[in-house]
Amino acid sequence: MTPRVKKLINNPDKILPEMLEGFASAYAEIVRLTDDGLVVRRTPKADGKVGLVIGNGSGHEPAMIGWIGKGLFDVNIPGEIFTAPGPARILRGIKAADRGAGVLVCVSHHAGDLMNAEAALEMAENEGIRNVKMVVLYDDISSAPKGHEAERRGTAGLFFVWKMLGALAETRGNLSACVALAEKARDNTRSLSMALTSCTHPITGQVMFELPDDELEIGMGVHGEAGAGRMKMMTADETINQMLPPILNDLPFQSGDKVIALLNNSGSLTLMELSILHRRVSQLLSQSGIRLYRSWLGSYATTQEMAGFSLSLCRVDEELKKLYDAPANGAWFKMAAASD
Amino acid sequence: MTPRVKKLINNPDKILPEMLEGFASAYAEIVRLTDDGLVVRRTPKADGKVGLVIGNGSGHEPAMIGWIGKGLFDVNIPGEIFTAPGPARILRGIKAADRGAGVLVCVSHHAGDLMNAEAALEMAENEGIRNVKMVVLYDDISSAPKGHEAERRGTAGLFFVWKMLGALAETRGNLSACVALAEKARDNTRSLSMALTSCTHPITGQVMFELPDDELEIGMGVHGEAGAGRMKMMTADETINQMLPPILNDLPFQSGDKVIALLNNSGSLTLMELSILHRRVSQLLSQSGIRLYRSWLGSYATTQEMAGFSLSLCRVDEELKKLYDAPANGAWFKMAAASD
Repeated sequence: MTPRVKKLINNPDKILPEMLEGFASAYAEIVRLTDDGLVVRRTPKADGKVGLVIGNGSGHEPAMIGWIGKGLFDVNIPGEIFTAPGPARILRGIKAADRGAGVLVCVSHHAGDLMNAEAALEMAENEGIRNVKMVVLYDDISSAPKGHEAERRGTAGLFFVWKMLGALAETRGNLSACVALAEKARDNTRSLSMALTSCTHPITGQVMFELPDDELEIGMGVHGEAGAGRMKMMTADETINQMLPPILNDLPFQSGDKVIALLNNSGSLTLMELSILHRRVSQLLSQSGIRLYRSWLGSYATTQEMAGFSLSLCRVDEELKKLYDAPANGAWFKMAAASD
Repeated sequence: MTPRVKKLINNPDKILPEMLEGFASAYAEIVRLTDDGLVVRRTPKADGKVGLVIGNGSGHEPAMIGWIGKGLFDVNIPGEIFTAPGPARILRGIKAADRGAGVLVCVSHHAGDLMNAEAALEMAENEGIRNVKMVVLYDDISSAPKGHEAERRGTAGLFFVWKMLGALAETRGNLSACVALAEKARDNTRSLSMALTSCTHPITGQVMFELPDDELEIGMGVHGEAGAGRMKMMTADETINQMLPPILNDLPFQSGDKVIALLNNSGSLTLMELSILHRRVSQLLSQSGIRLYRSWLGSYATTQEMAGFSLSLCRVDEELKKLYDAPANGAWFKMAAASD
């Protein structure tokens, strides 16, 4: 169970530009790659839309290049592998997203991403660009205790924020409404991840962390950051039995709540396994009187070919349900319109 | 680079029913699991639609449980892991799909699937069920030489057939038109696959085939059937340089043709790698004067956590382009409507 070292790349130093070129050539009807390496919508919405911008380290695809499009983000600033883009590039992203109704810079909470986004906002202000706000998002209950939510990392639960925020910005939301919605979706979301295997860094070819064959780890970050604990290998049901209660207790989710569940594939888990895992999620929620409104099993944010998944729940009311169900058309995330 | 042995399952003997239960509970708005283990649409179309049916061995998810829904299939008969469903179950699938306008049983060409589908059609005829046809589909150029196309295996290129056929049946196609369209899409499609690593059988836990760390194999089937040849590890560009010309020569695709490309993830390849691979596909097609109409990079049919991909091209005319672009809403394959 040693990780795959060989990857189908060319030059390790050219992964980012070659990936972007290949991606943009595959989805030319949805995105355009700018000369300075931003991924933007092929057909930007007419003026008056709040521009949604996010920068992130690459290597987590489909996040976030696959999330640019109608009902989703306007501009992605992809950084080098596992490296936040610099402030100057984020500033270019802000400018590219500005359609006169303000720009919201979304930050998945990691030190580098936050620092660079703050610097970019300062640069924007110094240039006289008004109406730019930032929202910092987090969801990983293993990275800081309850009561210290703002210290937590951003992981796959941000899926919910992006989907709902994208829908709001697409239709009617002004900048303040977008900030409020992002915070609302964040505050109703909790995530916990686990890994069965490590993976290799695409540039160095080095194994990113060590994990014995007969163990699994619960609570790791999206770059293999150490988790809450290692345990002996267990079944799918036992894994969910370990992971779901801490999530439910953290919010706390209560009987009568409606939730959307995400089982995010970290890399090489199969949809077969995710389905078996979801069976137990559904059973336990039902036992707790919590209603499953929707689920999504698939890859939202990966850590290369790591075998693992994260479980995220988002508590939804009528507003969040509607925004989740709204149509979306990114390269790697689509939601059909209700009429379809 | 040894394959992952541990999988997140419960009982190896219950993989199929537990997977189906978990899948159906996740996508209750799209599919329904019948008491006899068929995956059917939650809201079947009103009478008068040709019923599209397919049976297949499981373990290849998202194929085919994820392909039931509007603009796609009506009924899937999932078999045990890597095992075609039996004739009696296929017959039940035919009955479940019958809306009075005929039923088309689609077969991805493998001996067991074909034999069982033929037996099911005979049983249907004996029961007086009229207007049931079968279409046998194949695309893998490595499994039989040019001129012997009908002996070839069905692999990921069938993606194109299902997408286009689903769109035709949804809107206006009668049974004969559906058969003709499926054959037309098939006859314009060619595929070739490669693997970097093996994978393990989810029931036995055994490695499915052996592949040395410094080699790759080109031309394998979806169950690890032996391929055209093993070669030393190479770069992404060199891999496409090896794989694309035989595909182009087989049809033959000609300068001026328009094609849709599929890079199907066999399991644990990353979207990062698929994007870099697509870059070279796009370059070589452009050099040949062939225009890339659309591309899709992702998992259509997997072989557990095998690291590899297949490259498929479908030559399209105006009819096929329109059918490809039509909206679709399965659990694991969606296409946005043009208005979105």
